[in-house]
Amino acid sequence: MKIAIIGTGLVGSAWAIVFARAGCAVSLFDSVPGAADKAVAMIAERLRDLEHNGLIDQSATVLARIGQASSLAEAVEGAAYVQESVFETVADKRAIFSALDNVVGPDTVIGSSSSGIPASAFTDHVACRARCLVAHPANPPYLIPVVELVPAPWTSPDTMARVRALMSEVGQEPIALTREIQGFVINRLQGALLSEAWQLVADGIASVEDIDRTVSAGLGLRWSFMGPFETIDLNAPGGVADYARRFGPLYKDIHDSRREVRDWDDALIAEVERQRREALTQASLATRSAWRDRRLMNLARHKRAMADRDQTEDS
Amino acid sequence: MKIAIIGTGLVGSAWAIVFARAGCAVSLFDSVPGAADKAVAMIAERLRDLEHNGLIDQSATVLARIGQASSLAEAVEGAAYVQESVFETVADKRAIFSALDNVVGPDTVIGSSSSGIPASAFTDHVACRARCLVAHPANPPYLIPVVELVPAPWTSPDTMARVRALMSEVGQEPIALTREIQGFVINRLQGALLSEAWQLVADGIASVEDIDRTVSAGLGLRWSFMGPFETIDLNAPGGVADYARRFGPLYKDIHDSRREVRDWDDALIAEVERQRREALTQASLATRSAWRDRRLMNLARHKRAMADRDQTEDS
Repeated sequence: MKIAIIGTGLVGSAWAIVFARAGCAVSLFDSVPGAADKAVAMIAERLRDLEHNGLIDQSATVLARIGQASSLAEAVEGAAYVQESVFETVADKRAIFSALDNVVGPDTVIGSSSSGIPASAFTDHVACRARCLVAHPANPPYLIPVVELVPAPWTSPDTMARVRALMSEVGQEPIALTREIQGFVINRLQGALLSEAWQLVADGIASVEDIDRTVSAGLGLRWSFMGPFETIDLNAPGGVADYARRFGPLYKDIHDSRREVRDWDDALIAEVERQRREALTQASLATRSAWRDRRLMNLARHKRAMADRDQTEDS
Repeated sequence: MKIAIIGTGLVGSAWAIVFARAGCAVSLFDSVPGAADKAVAMIAERLRDLEHNGLIDQSATVLARIGQASSLAEAVEGAAYVQESVFETVADKRAIFSALDNVVGPDTVIGSSSSGIPASAFTDHVACRARCLVAHPANPPYLIPVVELVPAPWTSPDTMARVRALMSEVGQEPIALTREIQGFVINRLQGALLSEAWQLVADGIASVEDIDRTVSAGLGLRWSFMGPFETIDLNAPGGVADYARRFGPLYKDIHDSRREVRDWDDALIAEVERQRREALTQASLATRSAWRDRRLMNLARHKRAMADRDQTEDS
């Protein structure tokens, strides 16, 4: 199966790894001269990292599935799916969808990596709009498998079903929204937690470090293998309904106690920044990001081993 | 060092494991006849699980550190710290703190496992109130190390400092609140995410299963080893201030888009319950809970191995 990657920055390059790792032929195109060359070099390095960390067998074999196209038309020719990852402005997105509309085949589906702009804002004008949707990944998608699929009002159910099946086939975890909503689901859930975390700092209740450890040494452990609903389903003898009746009033009280939140104004940002820079200097951000990526790779391997064991026990 | 565990249900028993594992002498007392016997049997079983999963070396050695006291006075005699875990009502908490006030030594500190009632509601009347606070664990504390320390207005700074040091010594991750707040920090952060998750179901945006996978295959991965602030600190080139300026407006839009939330009413609970029971039958809840505990144990071992490796690389 051929996949076209349009826009080959950080996000597009990471998508190329997802599809090539799964055995797809991947064609890269970026309108900026030299961008696809840089992407291939970055992809090669990431693939070596993945091989080194035991997540893929043969980085060279995977890399060989990725090629560069000399035009948008060449990139999408014969592609079952196009993953669009150009710069995230409405104007850029509208322009690339206009261009794609002229060259894609009649069965090709186009997913946009848009993290916040809904597809209705940039696909209303194209003939192929029933085959367009948002397919928003986490970063990087080859280590964090969730992909949220967000239909525009005119996206066909068949398009949603095909992209959901494709994402599952290539090893991602697609989640399907029924309609567009501000921030989609990933950032709404992240935003809910962040909003409370920032407000706790604004109120002087706890330090940035302590709030972080509440998650990294607490809530985040179960959430790395079970979602919030399964967590509470297992936290009351009778399951989720039992839990909701026992603790619903507590959560309502918590919700009602927080009606107003402070904007992330300059003073509040400066305070969070001050606390973070005490924990990690500006100069160490890159080293720590590399550490995070290694931790994500090791966690992915751990989760794979756990899934294999579950399967063995079930059979 | 001697630790007294007062109230030996699920929470108290789990605390006994934390302290005994770290080498403390643990004295159990429960006013219900036979309760401490049941606790010892449960503790023995949990310790064997931990040994079987490579988290402790000698379960028998740890178990030997745990004894039963025949009275409250005997339990707390010579104890540096008392962990109170009786039934969570204001009346029960007030009664046990009155009783403790009569028998604790002049240096003994008392932490309550209260998950929601603040210490100011049940320690105002006791002479030792400067040495009382809430020390609320996650469940179970021997696998999820976060403990939130919540002072009443009269809790002394020395008490906070001593319990923080003690919890770190025994391998927990203490976080210190500056004052009491509805739901404390753990449940406020969990509640923020849950509130948004339930509302997404109420709005028909996504299924319970898909919302769960947004966390378990997405947001929860990084959160299992980094908190929300460190996550965003590493998600923009210039760190957290850069991130806040780029994405603050998006999160504000998300926040502003959700002013009203629906209560967890019977119809909404029934819908979540229906979806969860399709994923997991009522009869399978216990089996799945045992699976969760094994996963938590394996994750704890994984995290310990990662921490050891980080230390090796640093040295």
